[in-house]
Amino acid sequence: MIIAIDFGGTNIKIGLVDEGKMLAQTHLPSYSERGLRARLVVVEQEIYTLLQRQNAALPGCSGIGIATPGIVDTTRRTILSINNKYADAVGFDFEKWAQETFALPLLIENDARAALLGEVHYGIARGAKDAVLLTFGTGIGTSAMMNGQVIRGKHFQAGILGGHFSTDINGNVCNCGNKGCLEAQAGHWALSYAVKRHPDYLHSELSKLGILGYGDIIHAAHNKDVAGIDVLDELVAHWSAGIVNMIHAYDPEIVILSGGLMKSQQFLLAALYDNVNRMSWTPWGEVEIAVASDPDASVLLGLSSLFDSTDNGSVH
Amino acid sequence: MIIAIDFGGTNIKIGLVDEGKMLAQTHLPSYSERGLRARLVVVEQEIYTLLQRQNAALPGCSGIGIATPGIVDTTRRTILSINNKYADAVGFDFEKWAQETFALPLLIENDARAALLGEVHYGIARGAKDAVLLTFGTGIGTSAMMNGQVIRGKHFQAGILGGHFSTDINGNVCNCGNKGCLEAQAGHWALSYAVKRHPDYLHSELSKLGILGYGDIIHAAHNKDVAGIDVLDELVAHWSAGIVNMIHAYDPEIVILSGGLMKSQQFLLAALYDNVNRMSWTPWGEVEIAVASDPDASVLLGLSSLFDSTDNGSVH
Repeated sequence: MIIAIDFGGTNIKIGLVDEGKMLAQTHLPSYSERGLRARLVVVEQEIYTLLQRQNAALPGCSGIGIATPGIVDTTRRTILSINNKYADAVGFDFEKWAQETFALPLLIENDARAALLGEVHYGIARGAKDAVLLTFGTGIGTSAMMNGQVIRGKHFQAGILGGHFSTDINGNVCNCGNKGCLEAQAGHWALSYAVKRHPDYLHSELSKLGILGYGDIIHAAHNKDVAGIDVLDELVAHWSAGIVNMIHAYDPEIVILSGGLMKSQQFLLAALYDNVNRMSWTPWGEVEIAVASDPDASVLLGLSSLFDSTDNGSVH
Repeated sequence: MIIAIDFGGTNIKIGLVDEGKMLAQTHLPSYSERGLRARLVVVEQEIYTLLQRQNAALPGCSGIGIATPGIVDTTRRTILSINNKYADAVGFDFEKWAQETFALPLLIENDARAALLGEVHYGIARGAKDAVLLTFGTGIGTSAMMNGQVIRGKHFQAGILGGHFSTDINGNVCNCGNKGCLEAQAGHWALSYAVKRHPDYLHSELSKLGILGYGDIIHAAHNKDVAGIDVLDELVAHWSAGIVNMIHAYDPEIVILSGGLMKSQQFLLAALYDNVNRMSWTPWGEVEIAVASDPDASVLLGLSSLFDSTDNGSVH
């Protein structure tokens, strides 16, 4: 059994996982803009509560797995860079924290890579060896597996920056410094910009809302709100291009879609599937598109697979 | 010694290469729009001429290496798909041809991958293990190496489709079926579209030319031609985005630039370097940008490295 923690932009999820089985699970708000270190005390308490609920104790655990956004050094077990959220987590010694607090070994991985591992080992893409994942949450996270190995690259950046491929050279400047990144054009935090630019904005039902979510745009489009329809079209075009770019980069057999956006999958999948199969250059056949079987659990399950395998975070 | 053949869009280059040394070299026009099979008879004659010139003969050769554009199946030794050029080469049995004509074994590789192998083994990036290459010729070819292995992917597509990442969601439809591909926006064949769209086109010196080359645009920009300046700015922005996308995809230490465009490197490198280092998310440091040491030779030398190594085209 391991303790798995997923530091998401909105929620911190904690699970007790045994060989791909979720024994117990809880979550708490992340307040990620206030940083990560301050939340660790609460996380520690939640872990003890969860263990108690499961009639388990620390000696029954073989390790702690942590998933975070950003660029994660899986060998030195630290965060190298993170975009906006959990700013104080960069350079934090998670291994020391796990050792001092729980006397347990620690593994850390980027959250989108952990999600991909979870889906490939225990989820919708079981047995796949060539797969990519895109997760549409606060930002757009990605990851890639080639020939059964999740790719990490020389500096742990490979596969996870698909949200930072530029899909619109004339687009918005992104938090990361690049221009027209997929995430800056069609990620959750970019929605307000897209809507406010629309000439019909002031007549749109969207002008009456505060912070916009993917669901608001989809809802407005279904109400035949002009701004809603146009912005959704634009978003679908960007998401499609983002998926095609991942296919062209990593040559997968299956694309896994995850994150909050997939709550609206019934309104999106047909359009995404059509666009992607028309636009991707895959003479061998059609790439399968699948929705993550359990987005909330896949990151935690994926962390447990790191402990089960020999692929425990070494480079490449 | 091997016989190496590079089927380029404009020229077919043939070389006799011995352990990374070019012994003799020749080239002939490709007329690639007329297909590949018709050129093979001329290629055969040129090979015999080249051997004679070198006082060598077929029994002194250990194999034939072929590089072509497009998606190449390196295990079955055939071309799976090709964009416009050499249309009749798809499915051609190169192995049989080499066996029947020269009684020699054959290896085949995508031209941008061969160029990268050449630069890493014998050229500007000697010893690099994490590198990407972009070659700006008729199209924009790319390739990537991670941890010392040139990446090929499940269906031989990985690394080579960087020219077909969409960098402008609102851009031109590409030959490949995708929209706004780097190659469709800023490849050689897209130059005329870019120039003709410019409002000042009819007053531009570029309106007086026929088929436009990269050099024409650069020349016009230096003559303070308004359309020339604007189109060059646009091209540099696209090339920069293309390089950043390759960095974000494959996490290299070095980017190698090659192809005809590099004849104008003195006008371009500073701008490309500035853009790329400003826009790429690489907290570990700055990616090196280098120009291929001998673009004409690197593909041929790279083919010879396939015979020297254990990496002779198996998947991944």
